[in-house]
Amino acid sequence: QEPEERRTAVPGVATGLAVTGAGGDVLFVEASLADPETGGAGLQLTGQLGDVMKESAQIALSFLRSHGAELELPVTDLRERGVHLHVPAGAVPKDGPSAGVTMTTALASLLSGRKVRPDVAMTGEVSLTGRVLPIGGVKQKLLAADRAGITTVLIPSRNEPDLDDVPAEVLERLTVHPVADVRQVLELALEPAVSLTKDQPVRAA
Amino acid sequence: QEPEERRTAVPGVATGLAVTGAGGDVLFVEASLADPETGGAGLQLTGQLGDVMKESAQIALSFLRSHGAELELPVTDLRERGVHLHVPAGAVPKDGPSAGVTMTTALASLLSGRKVRPDVAMTGEVSLTGRVLPIGGVKQKLLAADRAGITTVLIPSRNEPDLDDVPAEVLERLTVHPVADVRQVLELALEPAVSLTKDQPVRAA
Amino acid sequence: QEPEERRTAVPGVATGLAVTGAGGDVLFVEASLADPETGGAGLQLTGQLGDVMKESAQIALSFLRSHGAELELPVTDLRERGVHLHVPAGAVPKDGPSAGVTMTTALASLLSGRKVRPDVAMTGEVSLTGRVLPIGGVKQKLLAADRAGITTVLIPSRNEPDLDDVPAEVLERLTVHPVADVRQVLELALEPAVSLTKDQPVRAA
Amino acid sequence: QEPEERRTAVPGVATGLAVTGAGGDVLFVEASLADPETGGAGLQLTGQLGDVMKESAQIALSFLRSHGAELELPVTDLRERGVHLHVPAGAVPKDGPSAGVTMTTALASLLSGRKVRPDVAMTGEVSLTGRVLPIGGVKQKLLAADRAGITTVLIPSRNEPDLDDVPAEVLERLTVHPVADVRQVLELALEPAVSLTKDQPVRAA
Amino acid sequence: QEPEERRTAVPGVATGLAVTGAGGDVLFVEASLADPETGGAGLQLTGQLGDVMKESAQIALSFLRSHGAELELPVTDLRERGVHLHVPAGAVPKDGPSAGVTMTTALASLLSGRKVRPDVAMTGEVSLTGRVLPIGGVKQKLLAADRAGITTVLIPSRNEPDLDDVPAEVLERLTVHPVADVRQVLELALEPAVSLTKDQPVRAA
Amino acid sequence: QEPEERRTAVPGVATGLAVTGAGGDVLFVEASLADPETGGAGLQLTGQLGDVMKESAQIALSFLRSHGAELELPVTDLRERGVHLHVPAGAVPKDGPSAGVTMTTALASLLSGRKVRPDVAMTGEVSLTGRVLPIGGVKQKLLAADRAGITTVLIPSRNEPDLDDVPAEVLERLTVHPVADVRQVLELALEPAVSLTKDQPVRAA
Ligand SMILES: [Ca+2]
Ligand SMILES: [Ca+2]
Ligand SMILES: [Ca+2]
Ligand SMILES: [Ca+2]
Ligand SMILES: [Ca+2]
Ligand SMILES: [Ca+2]
Ligand SMILES: [Ca+2]
Ligand SMILES: [Ca+2]
Ligand SMILES: [Ca+2]
Ligand SMILES: [Ca+2]
Ligand SMILES: [Ca+2]
Ligand SMILES: [Ca+2]
Repeated sequence: QEPEERRTAVPGVATGLAVTGAGGDVLFVEASLADPETGGAGLQLTGQLGDVMKESAQIALSFLRSHGAELELPVTDLRERGVHLHVPAGAVPKDGPSAGVTMTTALASLLSGRKVRPDVAMTGEVSLTGRVLPIGGVKQKLLAADRAGITTVLIPSRNEPDLDDVPAEVLERLTVHPVADVRQVLELALEPAVSLTKDQPVRAA
Repeated sequence: QEPEERRTAVPGVATGLAVTGAGGDVLFVEASLADPETGGAGLQLTGQLGDVMKESAQIALSFLRSHGAELELPVTDLRERGVHLHVPAGAVPKDGPSAGVTMTTALASLLSGRKVRPDVAMTGEVSLTGRVLPIGGVKQKLLAADRAGITTVLIPSRNEPDLDDVPAEVLERLTVHPVADVRQVLELALEPAVSLTKDQPVRAA
Repeated sequence: QEPEERRTAVPGVATGLAVTGAGGDVLFVEASLADPETGGAGLQLTGQLGDVMKESAQIALSFLRSHGAELELPVTDLRERGVHLHVPAGAVPKDGPSAGVTMTTALASLLSGRKVRPDVAMTGEVSLTGRVLPIGGVKQKLLAADRAGITTVLIPSRNEPDLDDVPAEVLERLTVHPVADVRQVLELALEPAVSLTKDQPVRAA
Repeated sequence: QEPEERRTAVPGVATGLAVTGAGGDVLFVEASLADPETGGAGLQLTGQLGDVMKESAQIALSFLRSHGAELELPVTDLRERGVHLHVPAGAVPKDGPSAGVTMTTALASLLSGRKVRPDVAMTGEVSLTGRVLPIGGVKQKLLAADRAGITTVLIPSRNEPDLDDVPAEVLERLTVHPVADVRQVLELALEPAVSLTKDQPVRAA
Repeated sequence: QEPEERRTAVPGVATGLAVTGAGGDVLFVEASLADPETGGAGLQLTGQLGDVMKESAQIALSFLRSHGAELELPVTDLRERGVHLHVPAGAVPKDGPSAGVTMTTALASLLSGRKVRPDVAMTGEVSLTGRVLPIGGVKQKLLAADRAGITTVLIPSRNEPDLDDVPAEVLERLTVHPVADVRQVLELALEPAVSLTKDQPVRAA
Repeated sequence: QEPEERRTAVPGVATGLAVTGAGGDVLFVEASLADPETGGAGLQLTGQLGDVMKESAQIALSFLRSHGAELELPVTDLRERGVHLHVPAGAVPKDGPSAGVTMTTALASLLSGRKVRPDVAMTGEVSLTGRVLPIGGVKQKLLAADRAGITTVLIPSRNEPDLDDVPAEVLERLTVHPVADVRQVLELALEPAVSLTKDQPVRAA
């Protein structure tokens, strides 16, 4: 198993795709919820995120605050447990709206206790209603996903025409799902809930 | 049905009109209310909004805080549910006072559970008493509304003279309502309340 | 009845006078109090106000917090109802201390439920004890008031000498009241309290 | 009676002395305490005060918070009543530490309900222990006090040597008290407490 | 015993490694928890820390807020006791993510009451899930550790290739542990818990 | 008795040493605790302190919040009484970490009600564990202390070598105590506690 896959070995980590100066790259969004006994509260954002990316995190959180109950997520956790979203590497500045789906997925994974599938990466702006809006750099992002051993990529429906620019052999290795709503992203990216047994307690932390 | 119309398929989304570097454009204001169980509170604004546009949002909220009960809106929701207003696209800076009516409408739609009519777009500054004040760019905004398949446009009464500059064939396709008070905007733009039945619960979220 | 007069058709709106790049102008200060059920609190200021004008609003509010009870205003409203002062137009930057009397009057009007007389405009800095201090631009402000159909203007006593510069025919049309204390402003500018009847409930909102 | 004297006709106003571009000048420090029913809290500072002058206000307040009870001031008022210090004129920037004694006196006057003597002006930095520290501009300040009809001036003891530069005829008209502690300032500047009778309630507001 | 070792003579101090203009250097991260009786709360950061290093501290704290209970740390202390992290020397600006493991260790040491081993120094970025990410300056840092009398150094696993650049004689004197998770760091760096006796109470403060 | 000595005539004032453009100088750190009835809370810093010096104050406070109980100080006072640290003169900018011991001493003096010895001055950075770290300007500081009539100076142990640069006749007049821990500073600098009698109540305020 590759190191990248191990990053998503716990609930709360989702694999995103970014465009950097040197082409595309895989990035990880990590979410944590403070133990309620620690008195943590509010939303903390780290990873040298720019203004637009910080707003994406607020949108992801508000989407779950208003629609999480419909999705059967334990949203009361958001009241008394501090939420922290971090995007390593800590010293690299990052910006843009395209991690919206990844942030929403990391948070939903943490709340549900369902891990994100290690073979899935995703990119897309999210609106407050859950709509997935188009982003840039589809070609570089798919090349990066392919290089990183990812086999399934979720992109905004409105970016489907950009697939024409992606080399056929890359597209062959990848399963690309165009999505219009972040609820589709959650269905495709989250692993099934683990059934609890006495011997294997599952904790979302 | 066009994609733009689908944006207003849920309560809390209203269609506005903006002037951009490349003429006019349709924009959407999205509102959400946090589930009270999540502990959300206060007003969150995203979409790279400038100072003037942020103030428009505060005015829209204060108008509903002080006049919402008259309009039979469930204003107690504003006490314990965090309000979030977002204007996609997330990375595009936006400013100016002319989204005041659109922000007020998105919030009133969300509170009332009444969807905004998909064929209606609107532009106008709102004052704290609900007065609709004149804005710029009427011609470009009406052209953009027409291009986007909008059939009804609400403009400030004091902008009526600007209709002279709009091509006759565009005006023929559009129904233009000059309005002097945001209460008129709400009457014209919101769909009738859905009557609740056991099988179709309606939730404002 | 002129549109300008209609601006003061509800309690909470007072007519001020400003000096702009193009002479003098009438401006309106609008005040609102949030419905206590909405959980609003604190002081919100909008209208692209500069530092000095924001301080004027804080002085107006503190004057009413400390002297409002003497004036028989229901000051307990200030505890649990968010106060918002707005000065349209939303996109025009404004600054200076001379709206102090207008801000105090708009707030007192709202608290008392007494409308501001539509034929009255006013200008003057207010100190924390209610003293009315002199301002600039008396000539341009009176010309603007006259153009706008205003018939009564309140100016600081210490600005009386500036009336020499105002054309005689303008002064003939205007009743000018020099005032030394904001309590005089309130007496001259607020309409008498409406007596409540079962059929005409009056709400300060 | 001169207008300047009337400024101190209510408790909470003290006469200070400043150096301006055009020599010295008299300034007034005004203090107010919010009616506890209005929910006001904290310390508000207005008058375009610079960093150093804002710190002087914090020092004045902390001195009374820690030593006010010794001075038999009703310091519990500071807990639930918002304190506001204002220095007119509102649009004129002011800075420097020399209004420390004046700010302390205005606040102590308000708390005690004892008016400040109208013939007294003062200048001096205050330390957190109440020590009065030396300031600049003694000559210009005394000339300004004399011009304004002030007859008693309080200066820091360590500024006594600066009196050599003040014209003899000015010193003849003025009673100058060098002071080393702000408690001396309060003794010299505050009028005796008014004895309360049923017909003349005194309110510190 | 060397002075550097004495720095870790109390729980709450961990030895890190930094790259400075003049090669590498040892630095100390100090943590304190306020006595709950003092009302301290929140996270305080001092030592002229840059943005990235402040975020490292927030990540360290969030890691312990969400995973501390698993590690059998008394995390309820984090609710009512103010946390302070300081990195002397106070006047020297510091930045970068590589003190993440050191900050986590200092905090865990303080919470557990277990001292950090004086012969151990460490470097590594920490992610929100506890993953140890690679850092720069391995060679300079190991030379500095060696000069300071340190005998055991913890580095990120992904930095193992950088050991090739470290002189063999330095590596001979040092035991280098590559680590992939901050939980390994805590196991290697913290001394065993002291058993409490009546005569030697141990306090984590 | 010299004026400088009188500065420390009340608990809460400690004598420090600074390097200025014109050599060394004596400075005073003043601490106050708000009367709990006044509702004061938090930490207030004045005296135009730079970033590093503000951090020193936070370190001093955190040291006492975490170690004050060991030192038998009434640390519960820190919960409900606002702490204010001021360094006159109010208009002179000050920075650097070397007032750390002086700030800690002023606060400990205030809490304990024990005055600081008037013949003692001190300089040294303090770490969060109470360690005294080296500072600059030993020579200028000792010359200034000597000029000011100080007879005992506390310096960091690691600054002992700098004593070589101090003129022998100055060292003869001064007793210099090198210290490694701020607890030594408190022992050397604080006067014994006054025994309370009915006639002479002692108040730390
Ligand atoms: Ca940006
Ligand atoms: Ca494929
Ligand atoms: Ca702007
Ligand atoms: Ca038409
Ligand atoms: Ca300004
Ligand atoms: Ca007239
Ligand atoms: Ca300044
Ligand atoms: Ca005299
Ligand atoms: Ca930075
Ligand atoms: Ca080795
Ligand atoms: Ca600095
Ligand atoms: Ca000696």
